[in-house]
Amino acid sequence: MTDGSEALLYRAVVEYDGTDFLGFQIQAQGRTVQGVLEEALLRLTQRPVRVVGSGRTDAGVHAWGQVVAFRTAWPHSLSRLHRGLNAVLPDDIAIRTLEPAPSGFHPRFSADERWYRYQIGLWSGHSPLRARYAWEIGPDLDVEAMNRAATELVGTHDFATFGRAPQGENTVRTVTQAVWSKETPYLYFDIRANAFLQRMVRNLVATLVWVGQGKCSPERFRTLLRSRDRSRSAPPAPPQGLFLMAVEYSL
Amino acid sequence: MTDGSEALLYRAVVEYDGTDFLGFQIQAQGRTVQGVLEEALLRLTQRPVRVVGSGRTDAGVHAWGQVVAFRTAWPHSLSRLHRGLNAVLPDDIAIRTLEPAPSGFHPRFSADERWYRYQIGLWSGHSPLRARYAWEIGPDLDVEAMNRAATELVGTHDFATFGRAPQGENTVRTVTQAVWSKETPYLYFDIRANAFLQRMVRNLVATLVWVGQGKCSPERFRTLLRSRDRSRSAPPAPPQGLFLMAVEYSL
Repeated sequence: MTDGSEALLYRAVVEYDGTDFLGFQIQAQGRTVQGVLEEALLRLTQRPVRVVGSGRTDAGVHAWGQVVAFRTAWPHSLSRLHRGLNAVLPDDIAIRTLEPAPSGFHPRFSADERWYRYQIGLWSGHSPLRARYAWEIGPDLDVEAMNRAATELVGTHDFATFGRAPQGENTVRTVTQAVWSKETPYLYFDIRANAFLQRMVRNLVATLVWVGQGKCSPERFRTLLRSRDRSRSAPPAPPQGLFLMAVEYSL
Repeated sequence: MTDGSEALLYRAVVEYDGTDFLGFQIQAQGRTVQGVLEEALLRLTQRPVRVVGSGRTDAGVHAWGQVVAFRTAWPHSLSRLHRGLNAVLPDDIAIRTLEPAPSGFHPRFSADERWYRYQIGLWSGHSPLRARYAWEIGPDLDVEAMNRAATELVGTHDFATFGRAPQGENTVRTVTQAVWSKETPYLYFDIRANAFLQRMVRNLVATLVWVGQGKCSPERFRTLLRSRDRSRSAPPAPPQGLFLMAVEYSL
């Protein structure tokens, strides 16, 4: 290290309102979660710090529990680092927990499971106080049919119909939970998997909404899944209903 | 009427996210609820229309159920007027219901009761996904003491300690309900009265938070209430926790 001290590896759980972010990953132009975190670390520690995340969230997608890691040799206590970062971060992002990471920890490659939740609004019309965090669909959805279709997702499948893999990866993923639950006026979709393809949750949600609207039967949904044909998915559900809830590690 | 048809009186229940409004009342400069509603009516009906509200909400205060009235001779159906207005209104405001108003109806003078709710956040630290609609205080509040103090509010009292009256009015109001209820991680204050003074709910909430923090006993709260001395109230709680929930009419 240039400053003579040893850089430590940290793991942070990060909450953000995705509305004003162009997604997680840093870009040449525009405000991103990674960019804002790296800026805060630079400002606090006076050294450039690279932040790595568990995965990319798209523009407008929220997070209760994104997990990131970074190294710094900042010579103060953990709690000062935590408070210092939250003090320089803007209001739409905060570090919920911060801890030393085990050696070899990588937020993406060490992750065992990701949990996403998608929120649908069952009210009629537009609700200004709720639209920031929901896809406003209205009350007429056959939730029972949506759940019958969703059970098809559980297990290890090739999900090519519903998303792209990062370069060099296949499109096989293992889904451990996929369930709709109604808590009026919301309908929640909770899905857990070892990993997700790009746009996978939003494509699944939109196609399951077709099922709920009677435009696609649960049987036909199974055919779509098995087709591995991306042109057969519904266009993605809007980002503001989606939350990265948690990422789980055995490490 | 200049257009030969008869203008009808309408009553509308309006929901808005107050974040980007400088309050309800139209001003020379800045975006207000009244201004945005009048602009929508002008755009739709091509005539200037005056909108009257049940009361002014301050900058940043939200509403689930603000009630407004206006007259227009727009020669189309009620449902076209409703849909047309929502189509031209911006995303942070919507008309929930629209109906013909009884003759003589006035949103302010006909109101029997107003219901406000204030939301406190009991989580530690800052939560980007919840801060838009709450005052983030943390978990350490003595809710039982806050409720003992709140019961002092019920009845007909001079509330001069907690707010100003509009010119020419006295500061006596009748509170029919004032209660704190905990739904973790939120603490709600629901207060109903025939009418409210300016800043009254936010001043009450902040002073009751003093009680919850042990800075002021319920007995001392009673003394403050009876003093009718505005300098003895806490400074107002922040606007983003406050919601005008409903206004009730016997008319």
